[in-house]
Amino acid sequence: MRLKIVFNMLGTLLIFIGVSMLVPIFVALYYKEVDGIAFIVAMGFTIIIGKILVRVTESNEQLRHREGFAVVTLGWIAISIFGAIPFMLAGVFNNFIDAFFESVSGFTTTGATVIMSLESLSHTILFWRSWMHWLGGMGILVMSIAILPELAGSMQLFKAEAPGPVHERLKPRIRETAKTLWGVYLVITLVQIILLVINEMPLFDALIHSFGTISTGGFSSRTLSVRAYDSVIIDIIMSVFMFLAGVNLTLHYQFLTGNIKALFKDKELKFYTFIVLTSIILITINLRLQVYKDIFESLNYAAFQVTSIISTAGFATVDYDIWPPFSRGILLILMFIGGCAGSTAGGIKVIRIYALMKKGFQELYKLIHPRAVTSLKIGNRAVSEEVSTSILGFFFLYIIVFVISTIVLTSFGIDLISSISAVAATLGNIGPGLGLIGPLNTYVPLPMVCKLLLSFCMILGRLEIYTVLVFLLSGFWRK
Amino acid sequence: MRLKIVFNMLGTLLIFIGVSMLVPIFVALYYKEVDGIAFIVAMGFTIIIGKILVRVTESNEQLRHREGFAVVTLGWIAISIFGAIPFMLAGVFNNFIDAFFESVSGFTTTGATVIMSLESLSHTILFWRSWMHWLGGMGILVMSIAILPELAGSMQLFKAEAPGPVHERLKPRIRETAKTLWGVYLVITLVQIILLVINEMPLFDALIHSFGTISTGGFSSRTLSVRAYDSVIIDIIMSVFMFLAGVNLTLHYQFLTGNIKALFKDKELKFYTFIVLTSIILITINLRLQVYKDIFESLNYAAFQVTSIISTAGFATVDYDIWPPFSRGILLILMFIGGCAGSTAGGIKVIRIYALMKKGFQELYKLIHPRAVTSLKIGNRAVSEEVSTSILGFFFLYIIVFVISTIVLTSFGIDLISSISAVAATLGNIGPGLGLIGPLNTYVPLPMVCKLLLSFCMILGRLEIYTVLVFLLSGFWRK
Repeated sequence: MRLKIVFNMLGTLLIFIGVSMLVPIFVALYYKEVDGIAFIVAMGFTIIIGKILVRVTESNEQLRHREGFAVVTLGWIAISIFGAIPFMLAGVFNNFIDAFFESVSGFTTTGATVIMSLESLSHTILFWRSWMHWLGGMGILVMSIAILPELAGSMQLFKAEAPGPVHERLKPRIRETAKTLWGVYLVITLVQIILLVINEMPLFDALIHSFGTISTGGFSSRTLSVRAYDSVIIDIIMSVFMFLAGVNLTLHYQFLTGNIKALFKDKELKFYTFIVLTSIILITINLRLQVYKDIFESLNYAAFQVTSIISTAGFATVDYDIWPPFSRGILLILMFIGGCAGSTAGGIKVIRIYALMKKGFQELYKLIHPRAVTSLKIGNRAVSEEVSTSILGFFFLYIIVFVISTIVLTSFGIDLISSISAVAATLGNIGPGLGLIGPLNTYVPLPMVCKLLLSFCMILGRLEIYTVLVFLLSGFWRK
Repeated sequence: MRLKIVFNMLGTLLIFIGVSMLVPIFVALYYKEVDGIAFIVAMGFTIIIGKILVRVTESNEQLRHREGFAVVTLGWIAISIFGAIPFMLAGVFNNFIDAFFESVSGFTTTGATVIMSLESLSHTILFWRSWMHWLGGMGILVMSIAILPELAGSMQLFKAEAPGPVHERLKPRIRETAKTLWGVYLVITLVQIILLVINEMPLFDALIHSFGTISTGGFSSRTLSVRAYDSVIIDIIMSVFMFLAGVNLTLHYQFLTGNIKALFKDKELKFYTFIVLTSIILITINLRLQVYKDIFESLNYAAFQVTSIISTAGFATVDYDIWPPFSRGILLILMFIGGCAGSTAGGIKVIRIYALMKKGFQELYKLIHPRAVTSLKIGNRAVSEEVSTSILGFFFLYIIVFVISTIVLTSFGIDLISSISAVAATLGNIGPGLGLIGPLNTYVPLPMVCKLLLSFCMILGRLEIYTVLVFLLSGFWRK
């Protein structure tokens, strides 16, 4: 590992994040809020540190395979640390771990919060939280084009499947692809803002909620989240855009350029839609029978919560923690599934679940026909044995990380369901879970060590586990 | 599928089970209990049906690959149905589903019960429950030599690993191996009976508890299970034998024939011992700090419950459902792990977990050294890519079956933890779980449909999932 080039990249990243703090500064100016000063100081500090890093480590070398993992892992940690500075300077938290947790939660687009009352915050701080989501979402897109395909299998499947511009990883193409995706990202955000404003959401709130939707983050400007607006039409707009946020962005691009056919050909989109619709129907029936008297009320809540959880946004219009075990159980499963590859969603990802199911059936088929020659296909593309093993390995690692983290949480006396859902909700980058950390609650009551562990889970989940583990273990296996 | 030969085998099996009912009849004679009549009638009926089946389907053909799956799956269902008849005739249950559940739980060595008060039962009935365990345990041993190695990967690892007599699957060797293992099985049972009787457990109770230990069943003759005896020395004997019951029986054979070295070479045994000791230490500390004042009391409870759950026996000396979430969480994980391959234990099995961990590390290693040539080794043996993929597939299938069954349970309004643990405890052939079906409770309150589903889970778990699914799907893929 050549630390020099790694730190050079980190420096560049810090400068970028520092500059991005200009936006909340403008917000502070507009609202004439004193918190702007916190951002000016933080911006200066971040940019200076970034510049120093870049200057000290100047080199013309190219980033190598392994170093990419280091940049991504350390990068996400670094921006989270510097992103926490404005929180501290503005006095939002009285300890850095809480500020770091909130910042990690922002950049990883998780949306888990340690703030009890959002209404007590300035516009500037509220904006920064959602702005971190939006930037983090962009970062995920770059990562999924430039770095994740390096992870054998983990994302190769996405690379192979994506019918859009993500065909090659040649340098010039990466830049071009990133631009296209960011364009799409911007367009979707704008459309949602406009729709929300038309339907009487204040512009500021519309910005916050649109940033939190396309990035699948889930930070709100209201303690009550989206239910604060008490508007069915806003619920529906949010549900539709959360569903869309869970879809591969290259498919959005195809759609916007008129290639509707691509949508119908995409197996992952079909399976994602199938899971969403099935879950909505099951939960609607369950709610109608056991909780609400009105079928449309049940449907509205079910649709919102299903799209919110599977897309890993994590907004809420209702305290789903009081729902019957069946509905809560389905939401818990959706936390593990997550959205489509190539979106900003977290979780295991639909394409992997789909591949695993196909693989499972294939193994059974092999037992019945031992001499049959089989190959795993998704759509028209064959999935190599190596890739499918890698997906199975990913699934196992995901479960292992989940189990170990859950046990650590329980060792602090946190009940089983809260522990299980806290890990599922952070590892899957969702935000709220069940029980202690349900949609009406926050992560405030957890001990500091647990908050650190869950921050780590957010980063692990965001970087598809492999990236972080490879980085952590690469020293171990250096020789 | 040639149904003729399948039914011929089933007929033979029924005759065997019918004849085995002679033993409870002797018990009835000894205790002069009227329930003996139920067994005489059931025996006659079972043997007659068996004879008819054998007569009608007479053939000289050899059992083929696929038909083996059918025999095992249908066989376990058939003996459970006929094993339930004495319960009905003796008036233990007022519906056949409960009787079937108890019978499946017996033969699959699960030990989940739908009987509220065991003290109200006759010796004959109590004996029959544990006798089913003991026979079921034997059946598992035959299966693990003769049929499971056919399942590519599922048990190939065991086949490859077992250093003992289980090296080849040649017909004459199977018979010989089975005899050896049964000999060992008998010896361990006898030793435990003697030790329990020496330590003042009544002979009848000693039989019941020894049958339930080596088979990792867990039916007791007391509603309070082993805590009814309130004896530390009995607790310790039980803990040791439960631990032993979770060990590959070929290793017991090695030990008995003086080949101590084999024990130290066995990776699975090492890993199993490591998991057991770690869990005992963690739970002891947790209990000492939060529940009991005495360290030895904590240790005794921890050791008993850990060996009971990981070996999938399911006896209890304490209501562990009131333990802190950390201890309960560890027990829940142990439910999934289970004992060693080649034992009568259920669960995913230690060797698979071990192989999965190694595979996980290997995948990470590959990412760091993409051009390195790696092969998965356990001990000195290389594990083929096919086998390791198959193990990963097994893990995924196990989780899928678990998730789907849990969701079905919640749809009946059963809370999440009870649903999760009920499925884990039946799929893993343990018996008691947490919450509604904790060690102080029974499966009585569950709706009938849930009892049927959980019966199916017990059989699925017992037959390592693949066997049953292959059978169910082989019609589907016939062409």
